[in-house]
Amino acid sequence: MGKVPRSGRLVAITKELIDHPHSLISLGRFSEAFDAAKSSISEDIAIIKRAFEDLRLGKIETVAGAGGGVRFIPYLWENEVAEVVRGFCEELASPKRILPGGFVYMTDLLFSPFHMTRAGRVFASKFADVMPDCVLTVETKGIPPAFMTAAAFNVPLAIARRDGQVTEGPIVSINYVSGSTRRLQSMSLARRAIPVGARVLIIDDFMKGGGSAKGLTDLVREFGAETVGIGVLIATAEPREKLVSDFVSLVVLEGVDEEAKRAIVRPSQWVLDGVRDGQSKDGRPRE
Amino acid sequence: MGKVPRSGRLVAITKELIDHPHSLISLGRFSEAFDAAKSSISEDIAIIKRAFEDLRLGKIETVAGAGGGVRFIPYLWENEVAEVVRGFCEELASPKRILPGGFVYMTDLLFSPFHMTRAGRVFASKFADVMPDCVLTVETKGIPPAFMTAAAFNVPLAIARRDGQVTEGPIVSINYVSGSTRRLQSMSLARRAIPVGARVLIIDDFMKGGGSAKGLTDLVREFGAETVGIGVLIATAEPREKLVSDFVSLVVLEGVDEEAKRAIVRPSQWVLDGVRDGQSKDGRPRE
Repeated sequence: MGKVPRSGRLVAITKELIDHPHSLISLGRFSEAFDAAKSSISEDIAIIKRAFEDLRLGKIETVAGAGGGVRFIPYLWENEVAEVVRGFCEELASPKRILPGGFVYMTDLLFSPFHMTRAGRVFASKFADVMPDCVLTVETKGIPPAFMTAAAFNVPLAIARRDGQVTEGPIVSINYVSGSTRRLQSMSLARRAIPVGARVLIIDDFMKGGGSAKGLTDLVREFGAETVGIGVLIATAEPREKLVSDFVSLVVLEGVDEEAKRAIVRPSQWVLDGVRDGQSKDGRPRE
Repeated sequence: MGKVPRSGRLVAITKELIDHPHSLISLGRFSEAFDAAKSSISEDIAIIKRAFEDLRLGKIETVAGAGGGVRFIPYLWENEVAEVVRGFCEELASPKRILPGGFVYMTDLLFSPFHMTRAGRVFASKFADVMPDCVLTVETKGIPPAFMTAAAFNVPLAIARRDGQVTEGPIVSINYVSGSTRRLQSMSLARRAIPVGARVLIIDDFMKGGGSAKGLTDLVREFGAETVGIGVLIATAEPREKLVSDFVSLVVLEGVDEEAKRAIVRPSQWVLDGVRDGQSKDGRPRE
């Protein structure tokens, strides 16, 4: 391929960075791919970095030196987090979601690539400081949000199974008590799914009593690994006391208004606080 | 926000397009966001489109007229497909994967965001012509490749469950015979997961006898919907006759060399043919 003009390089480098979040890419690779001087590539990166900062498209980090390069960190600011969470709340409050027995149908939301990409970026932003080595969830509905969080961090996903699978080699199984039904349940995870000493971020779709999350933290401990955070899309307001104390939810489900056939949902307090704090700290509210 | 220079617009528009594959975005939206004339935005789009074409980053489609706009179609050319599939084969041939009983451990590959993003784009490229309304899989390991295929197409995912779930409303259940073990199994899917008349793409991780895929096509028929394609990451060479005749696999698993402790894998024939045909048709082989 011949010389690529700056405009073309800006487009291609932007795409390469977005396609490989959290991956350090050397400037030499771009310089070779585009047959351009490293100084030109450095200028390209500076332009891209400025655009990402000014337009709040996420973070671009440059690392100087021989082993250095550039990487894209998916990051949503407080106002964007609030916008995503408000979008979930609006979706969840739709009357068409109420099922017989007062259950809320949310499978379509959980299995929507559009919504789960956003959820993954919200979790990746909220847990940016803990930088996990892997994300852990339990099948089935937790998988899409957990997978998209893992994608945003560019780390592997581990999925605990409700039944052991013979094709995964040695497994670790634990029993746990469901927080809401008080029934004894079990979950299993392949021995090789989580390395010893790993920093594990637990992501799930829904928390009522917190039994699954508690079970997952027990499982992490069995692997000699460390739970560095717990995130759920939706947590019920009641019971107030969960089996795990330290977790982050995006949405709080207060209950179901049977008459109006609506789920009563609201953004979690930290989401609302973030907007207020974010604006005052930052001094530049985003429309 | 003030005026954004062209370089910044190129970066931001590229990101917006990549973040929303298959979504038509009006030029007016960009024009408003960047306080730029529509003619300038048109030029930006032309530059981005040329870069995507020249550097083969995917496809950019522009639609003229009042309801028009621009959209990004994730697309890998024949050589890139072959590169991805060869990468899978190399991974799968690693000796560390052989488990007692001659099973091949592949969970880490299936749960890797990096690899499954690529798998999703390969399926989206292979099935670009059929343009499905939704993607269907069966829990658990099929979910990541199916979800990333759905993400590349920007369509919802439907996940058939091995057990019915009370919180999903009315469900459709079917029985099917496992192709390899001949055991009777069942799977269920929420009534509202697939609309009548939908064009459904079935994606799964593994095919041996083809029982699951056959079951999924039966399920699609129960919904009054149409199966427009079946894709699996890995198909075994034996049995040669599967329960479904028309499917696409990326990798063929010939067997396991117990002595060398290696899975014997190769890219599917269409992948290899594509490279040859792609080069001769195109006249521009890609290094």
